[in-house]
Amino acid sequence: MSTATAAPAQRQKQWDTRRTEKRRRLEAVRQYANGPVLQPGDMVAVLEALLAPGDRVVLEGNNQKQADFLARMLTQVNPDKIHHLHLIMPSVSLPEHLDLFERGIARKLDFSFAGTQSLRIAQFLQDGLLEVGAIHTYIELYARLFVDLTPNVVMVAGYMADRQGNLYTGPSTEDTPTLVESAAFRDGIVIAQVNQIVDDVSDLPRVDVPGSWIDFVVQSDKPFFIEPLFTRDPRVIKPVHVLMAMMAIRGVYEKHQVQSLNHGIGFNTAAIELILPTYGEQLGLKGKICRNWVLNPHPTLIPAIETGWVESVHCFGAELGMEGYAAARPDVFFTGRDGSMRSNRALCQLAGQYAVDLFIGATLQMDGLGNSSTVTNGRLAGFGGAPNMGHDPHGRRHPTPAWLDLIETDDPLARGKKLVVQMVETFQDGGQPTIVESLDAVAVGQASGMPLAPVMIYGDDVTHVLTEEGIAYLYKARSLDERKAMLAAVAGVTPIGLRHDPKTTAKLRADGLIALPEDIGVQRGAANRSLLAAKSIADLVEWSDGLYQPPAKFRSW
Amino acid sequence: MSTATAAPAQRQKQWDTRRTEKRRRLEAVRQYANGPVLQPGDMVAVLEALLAPGDRVVLEGNNQKQADFLARMLTQVNPDKIHHLHLIMPSVSLPEHLDLFERGIARKLDFSFAGTQSLRIAQFLQDGLLEVGAIHTYIELYARLFVDLTPNVVMVAGYMADRQGNLYTGPSTEDTPTLVESAAFRDGIVIAQVNQIVDDVSDLPRVDVPGSWIDFVVQSDKPFFIEPLFTRDPRVIKPVHVLMAMMAIRGVYEKHQVQSLNHGIGFNTAAIELILPTYGEQLGLKGKICRNWVLNPHPTLIPAIETGWVESVHCFGAELGMEGYAAARPDVFFTGRDGSMRSNRALCQLAGQYAVDLFIGATLQMDGLGNSSTVTNGRLAGFGGAPNMGHDPHGRRHPTPAWLDLIETDDPLARGKKLVVQMVETFQDGGQPTIVESLDAVAVGQASGMPLAPVMIYGDDVTHVLTEEGIAYLYKARSLDERKAMLAAVAGVTPIGLRHDPKTTAKLRADGLIALPEDIGVQRGAANRSLLAAKSIADLVEWSDGLYQPPAKFRSW
Repeated sequence: MSTATAAPAQRQKQWDTRRTEKRRRLEAVRQYANGPVLQPGDMVAVLEALLAPGDRVVLEGNNQKQADFLARMLTQVNPDKIHHLHLIMPSVSLPEHLDLFERGIARKLDFSFAGTQSLRIAQFLQDGLLEVGAIHTYIELYARLFVDLTPNVVMVAGYMADRQGNLYTGPSTEDTPTLVESAAFRDGIVIAQVNQIVDDVSDLPRVDVPGSWIDFVVQSDKPFFIEPLFTRDPRVIKPVHVLMAMMAIRGVYEKHQVQSLNHGIGFNTAAIELILPTYGEQLGLKGKICRNWVLNPHPTLIPAIETGWVESVHCFGAELGMEGYAAARPDVFFTGRDGSMRSNRALCQLAGQYAVDLFIGATLQMDGLGNSSTVTNGRLAGFGGAPNMGHDPHGRRHPTPAWLDLIETDDPLARGKKLVVQMVETFQDGGQPTIVESLDAVAVGQASGMPLAPVMIYGDDVTHVLTEEGIAYLYKARSLDERKAMLAAVAGVTPIGLRHDPKTTAKLRADGLIALPEDIGVQRGAANRSLLAAKSIADLVEWSDGLYQPPAKFRSW
Repeated sequence: MSTATAAPAQRQKQWDTRRTEKRRRLEAVRQYANGPVLQPGDMVAVLEALLAPGDRVVLEGNNQKQADFLARMLTQVNPDKIHHLHLIMPSVSLPEHLDLFERGIARKLDFSFAGTQSLRIAQFLQDGLLEVGAIHTYIELYARLFVDLTPNVVMVAGYMADRQGNLYTGPSTEDTPTLVESAAFRDGIVIAQVNQIVDDVSDLPRVDVPGSWIDFVVQSDKPFFIEPLFTRDPRVIKPVHVLMAMMAIRGVYEKHQVQSLNHGIGFNTAAIELILPTYGEQLGLKGKICRNWVLNPHPTLIPAIETGWVESVHCFGAELGMEGYAAARPDVFFTGRDGSMRSNRALCQLAGQYAVDLFIGATLQMDGLGNSSTVTNGRLAGFGGAPNMGHDPHGRRHPTPAWLDLIETDDPLARGKKLVVQMVETFQDGGQPTIVESLDAVAVGQASGMPLAPVMIYGDDVTHVLTEEGIAYLYKARSLDERKAMLAAVAGVTPIGLRHDPKTTAKLRADGLIALPEDIGVQRGAANRSLLAAKSIADLVEWSDGLYQPPAKFRSW
């Protein structure tokens, strides 16, 4: 076996460097630990012992739930000891997250979403305080945790833990199990902050992450921060939102028989949710459309649930105030044996990618080809989940009526398509056009030294554009020029819309390539707030029979 | 609040019908259960009490690991009591799985893969014994478990459980956590068969699925069946495989700097793995290509691991005989705190979709446009993971050198592409051409009443076709006609290849659209078995220092 003679020389190699290093670090904090339990007051010292310069660190960093105590402790470590950390964060949401870069503790950032911190990220990038690895869609970032971004340390948040490290996340399971798995199974170190530590597993409502995956738990000084990101006050919904919602129901959902779908945040989709029990009911669509949902527990979905429209909702995360309502509707929401909801962003993103008929989103800017971005000058907002759900997954093989309905040829090798709908008013509230010549993202990408422009959803993935003017059925376009003309026809008086020859509109309508409200039986005059099943947060509370408990900032009574 | 007045009428609705029904069923088997522990001898009676006609039932049914005891017990229930089950199975692998349909216990099937049972499925379909919901790629099927295919009962397999139901899956975690989650969090019933029941959680090596997700555990009469699907004996690798492996390394991996990748089963990719330590080493490519892997623990990867080529391997499942080797290489493989490997098909498929540069596969048939299928007349083989990994995920946003290298325009809105390589000999061993005028799948799809032909990987998703003749760089094609000509130029003397005008070849080569071995510095004369780092299973064992323990059927010594 001549070729295998190379083997013995390799036998010197050590194959457990990660495990050995983990043991060394665990040993270094043994004095602070009682089993897996750490004391909050020791955490700065503990982190200085558990981390090493250059470590890849996952800091949760979710869309809603934040490991905020651990983030605060991390900002207090000595940057002479701990520096050049490579942070991997689904969501960069708190000032502390960026303080880590300002203080020289962290250096590189891979992330998915940056809401309120988007301006500061761009500024830090320009100032050379921060280096961006890449911006991802959520599950793309999780995927890399198992390939080329496996973390050394993962810090997460949960509601409760026992003294063996078993973790109860509560309804906000979100990204936690996925983040933990990437370290627990590659000799990384896992630390969970919790609101409460109990003695025994029998004191936990349920176990969301087993104790054998978690190295340390620490009770934080106050409950973790969680933001009600998905609460839309119906009072702010305007008649134009109602008009667009009516168009969506008739011209997209009814037309294509959309049975499973994702809604994001936004007043347009909130309006759809709120007119299902009124307008949708009048059209006799209950049970025919919108049965299986993939979305956060939106308060505006309550009337549709209460009137029997909704068979199931699988959630990315929880929503503050909706805990009791979701727990009381276990036929609809995914709940554990203890009765509280379980969310799971990785599985829900998977569901939103592969198992639903339709994604409907909104954007701040869209160009004449349908490319869109929420990156505007000076802000690196990231992508979140939209790129994942806002494209047609070519690996899908199961048919549904809506998916098949988008086939436009007789080719036996044709396949269906996921519906990717962009629903936008032609102008933003501030009077800026939504539909523009060129995305700001192109300039931002170049200025930031990114290899590609940070496009949220690419035009060639968009099947429908819905504005207050009409619907462009882009999946029917037979050429790029036709596609542009269709989009321009519904672009109103934006620069793109003004370039459109109104004479073309009649032809596009006749060919079924675009539809105006009257073409799909939508009466503009009927589009007013009286169609909303709930007109205020108080109405939602009443619909929920008092189970929905909105956060104070949404209470006006 | 006039519109909300509809609400009170709805208050009559019961919102916990699933939970109530689950309680009723649990009550019905209380006499058999000691906590969550059931006795094997009671299982037929237990299943008759836990199931109801028409239930959606997940039966694991994995690529490798099988809940075979539970499948056998299910075949023995009384079809007068339990019938019309809707089975949801990642893999239909055992005769018992189809016996369920023959006996009238099951009626409908949603699945991903059917290896040895593919012929019988097609026959049953024709005989009207079985109705196919759809054939899916793995994670597409998991996704539907959280949307429109949530199961009533899930039956899985693990190595060990304790008397609280905590489950240790061993290295073959595979699909288990995902399947369990879909029922555990929607009031479904979860039953796990295990090889051994221990008293306490501290007696388990680790917990893979928490006890609070599992309703019942039962010790099976013999250890669960597991098949070494990914073991390829190097003795069967032919010089043509070595030639194609050399071409892949130079013309694809080196050319595009492929750092992260998936390999499926097949002798071609096994040959690539086995010549990395020889041919790859000579080319100075170590550390530059093939660093992060997404694949089952292939024995043929051992020499590349031992010679330091491989930084990480995340696994879909385990491989029989590789348990000890993987456990001894924790820097490379994902292992738990107990030291044994943890696989996870959902996360690994996610990694294979979103985080790797390249998918390389093989197929039984490919048409002139690059569409391929493993469905041949009379066999409904299913898809497994290939459609998911064998396409360009349009939700990907992070760049890598390989991904960027496939951009062919200056458009600032251009994006990279995942490399999807089909590596096929132009003829099968039996002398049938691989590259054909029309896929058998088209006729099979029509005969089976499927709405679409069961295509494994669509031509428009394929970026490279590699045959023993050369490489067609299909991503460079500027038209459909050019694409066809490129593929025909490497199609040898198949009907498609014979239609090709050899004069065109020179032009395609000059334009870099196709490459023959000599164009990429591959010497045909060097393509022989002496390049294989291991030439037999015994060599692999030696490379592994005796850690790899091949199943008896692969032992010839």
